[in-house]
Amino acid sequence: MALFSKPIQTLDDLFVHTLQDIYYAEQQIVKNLPTMAEKASSPELKAAFEHHLGETKTHVQRLEKVFQLHGQPAKAVNCPAIDGILTEAKEVISDCGDKEVCDAAMLSAAQAVEHYEMTRYGTLIAFASQLGRTDCAELLNATLSEEKAADKKLSSIAQTRVNKMAA
Amino acid sequence: MALFSKPIQTLDDLFVHTLQDIYYAEQQIVKNLPTMAEKASSPELKAAFEHHLGETKTHVQRLEKVFQLHGQPAKAVNCPAIDGILTEAKEVISDCGDKEVCDAAMLSAAQAVEHYEMTRYGTLIAFASQLGRTDCAELLNATLSEEKAADKKLSSIAQTRVNKMAA
Repeated sequence: MALFSKPIQTLDDLFVHTLQDIYYAEQQIVKNLPTMAEKASSPELKAAFEHHLGETKTHVQRLEKVFQLHGQPAKAVNCPAIDGILTEAKEVISDCGDKEVCDAAMLSAAQAVEHYEMTRYGTLIAFASQLGRTDCAELLNATLSEEKAADKKLSSIAQTRVNKMAA
Repeated sequence: MALFSKPIQTLDDLFVHTLQDIYYAEQQIVKNLPTMAEKASSPELKAAFEHHLGETKTHVQRLEKVFQLHGQPAKAVNCPAIDGILTEAKEVISDCGDKEVCDAAMLSAAQAVEHYEMTRYGTLIAFASQLGRTDCAELLNATLSEEKAADKKLSSIAQTRVNKMAA
């Protein structure tokens, strides 16, 4: 390898880097969801955050299994994307002066988090499939399905409860 | 209004704030897409970025029309989420030492951008509908459809071309 060569030379390197990125992101989400559940006024939203916290802990474990299957140590790299999404969430929540409006802001922020995860897992599944790692792709796909279901559930809570209460 | 009151008191305030957020995000995307198109090695990816640049300029204009319909000046607020997503994109692209792998990284980064936009437009449409602004919702929905189509197109280019070339 040449001196000063770039760290990402192959699709396999990019797959591992993207795994490390979402591993960091999932850990940040585990840290942030309890505060969101605590702040939520709507019982449905609170329950959705609490349920998703349990799922997110499973997603972390699944990623550790994927690292293991791929013969790599489970390692996180900084992920400015999730940091930005969570920073923005905290800013808008702290700017809300009404608890029902705050619920709508938190729900919207949670959907931004879900969409970030959905895009990263979609990419990881495509990379894993291209690399012939169907074992990894299957695990990643289980998480993607749960992220999509969580997003759909949030949309339903927004439409039937939270946005109506905020209006 | 009380002294030191929070700036977001109503769902209408949150709708306007979210419009200002995505208005900033779309402007950042207009600034960044030409560099991505220039760096892309795959002709299909380059063409997709160039096509989406044109669409993104239309999205900015549509947002200005939504501000106008809603009786608000078109104004951007800082959006740490899109800043984080774009920072991460630049970092991973600069770490890639192979042009085909760089294409795969850029494509993945572009899908993260699309997903951010999809979640924000989805939220804006839900808020607009709740507020009785079907005129705004219709315009926002036109953009959402284009973001979804752009994401689908990128997935197809990844599967049929870019990831294969990078592997």
